[in-house]
Amino acid sequence: MRVVRTVAQLREALEYMRQGGHTPIGFVPTMGYLHEGHASLLRRAGEMSSTVVMSIFVNPLQFGPNEDFASYPRDEVRDLELAEREGADIVFIPSVEEMYPQPIRTKVSVSSLTTQLCGASRPGHFDGVTTVVSKLFNIVQPDYAFFGLKDAQQVAVLRRMVSDLNMNVEIIACPIVRENDGLALSSRNVYLSAQERSQALVLSRSLQSVRQAMEEGKVRTVDDARNLLVSVISSSPLAVIDYAEILTFPELETLDGSSLLTDADGEIIMALAVKFGRTRLIDNNVFIPKEAHALV
Amino acid sequence: MRVVRTVAQLREALEYMRQGGHTPIGFVPTMGYLHEGHASLLRRAGEMSSTVVMSIFVNPLQFGPNEDFASYPRDEVRDLELAEREGADIVFIPSVEEMYPQPIRTKVSVSSLTTQLCGASRPGHFDGVTTVVSKLFNIVQPDYAFFGLKDAQQVAVLRRMVSDLNMNVEIIACPIVRENDGLALSSRNVYLSAQERSQALVLSRSLQSVRQAMEEGKVRTVDDARNLLVSVISSSPLAVIDYAEILTFPELETLDGSSLLTDADGEIIMALAVKFGRTRLIDNNVFIPKEAHALV
Repeated sequence: MRVVRTVAQLREALEYMRQGGHTPIGFVPTMGYLHEGHASLLRRAGEMSSTVVMSIFVNPLQFGPNEDFASYPRDEVRDLELAEREGADIVFIPSVEEMYPQPIRTKVSVSSLTTQLCGASRPGHFDGVTTVVSKLFNIVQPDYAFFGLKDAQQVAVLRRMVSDLNMNVEIIACPIVRENDGLALSSRNVYLSAQERSQALVLSRSLQSVRQAMEEGKVRTVDDARNLLVSVISSSPLAVIDYAEILTFPELETLDGSSLLTDADGEIIMALAVKFGRTRLIDNNVFIPKEAHALV
Repeated sequence: MRVVRTVAQLREALEYMRQGGHTPIGFVPTMGYLHEGHASLLRRAGEMSSTVVMSIFVNPLQFGPNEDFASYPRDEVRDLELAEREGADIVFIPSVEEMYPQPIRTKVSVSSLTTQLCGASRPGHFDGVTTVVSKLFNIVQPDYAFFGLKDAQQVAVLRRMVSDLNMNVEIIACPIVRENDGLALSSRNVYLSAQERSQALVLSRSLQSVRQAMEEGKVRTVDDARNLLVSVISSSPLAVIDYAEILTFPELETLDGSSLLTDADGEIIMALAVKFGRTRLIDNNVFIPKEAHALV
């Protein structure tokens, strides 16, 4: 495994792999502090690609002024161990100066998919994501790029960007990885106190409750489902709901509250963002109500 | 010369050229109605590239609602003759539906370089340019892309976009091509009446007058130069000035009016946009005052 820190080194390393015929190239962009969710992306990339590139870059552009950019957890030594173990061929760890050598004046933005859910709570966040991912795609020029479905809105936004701008890359969405007790893996879980960690289980539990109630015929409309989500989450005294929404996926369009879930064409998403103390966690479930079939 | 009309055909044709080792790839994006200015771009591309790709696409995204998208001149037969004669290997002529199969929600925008000059007169214009050029770059993946310096602001904006987003392409700026009497070539010159055509010569004449007066020491400050530009242009009764500006290049920053031209570091641009009847023409001159040396 090769560790590179500059764009020029990375381009050179990739040119070498391409000339050696080690294609397709799979790319796993991350912000580091890697966990089993990232490991699953690396393994999937390894199955589909001859060269696996991982980037580790905490991108200041996608953090708001009052968010946790400075305190976002970092552990390069442990990250490199995990990357090596899970088969990364090249790890790109640029500095902020390497990625933004001059004040960036160019922005890549996706409208309408970014105004709801996390886009509403974190203004500018998705512009930061689409801009840095555009840069990384231009540097790596991968055939496949791997993203976890925990950030389902990010997957929807990036798919739209790739399609709108004719980017020559396929976005591969990978299932959410959970702890045994159901908590979705997140680098931010490290912020949780023991009590918060325990109460945070209401996220996955609320999603499971709706799925089960649907199967039992106890939840039929969009409003039924939303009410059940909110009621399960509210059973946790520490939980402060940012949003609990049910939308079409990947268009992220609102569904009429009185409409039957089974009337929805295609996929829908139940998406949650809930604060526990100062830590904001997200979770979601994407499924096809007509087939009552979990995609994640 | 191969003419292709879909993204898939173009990608296939380019893959064939790449596999045959016919690289580097040079790209000349145009809106068609080709003239000797475009021909000069094709010839320069031919000198630097093994495969020359030209696109012809009148991009609705970069026209304002009251601009000339519908009436913009088009002549595919003549364009293809010129492209073949000047050595294009592949000509890409997509329909609007091929370029925008769904309403585009993704925008690539460059701030601060786009608020002055043509950006002020044509709100949204440069967002349309940077977005479609991003799409075309992603489709063609050229090593070099050739643009005429008549649209000097466009060159400045695209260079910034390429640098900010780490696009793997080099922007090659080519000199303005003029008629024998000095009129800068433009597809829009066809709109001019004989009288307007004749009076439009004040554009190049005003630029030349400033250069000459500088050499003779009669124009020394930025205000002197701007006043002379305006005075020469105003000698044409039909001319309606949109802007006549003197800025740094390629940053397009304002210069203090009382400062000496020869105090400016690096390049400066004298940039003009003038209306004759319903036709808006642009012209410019980029030079290094310290060296009194014309770049174009």
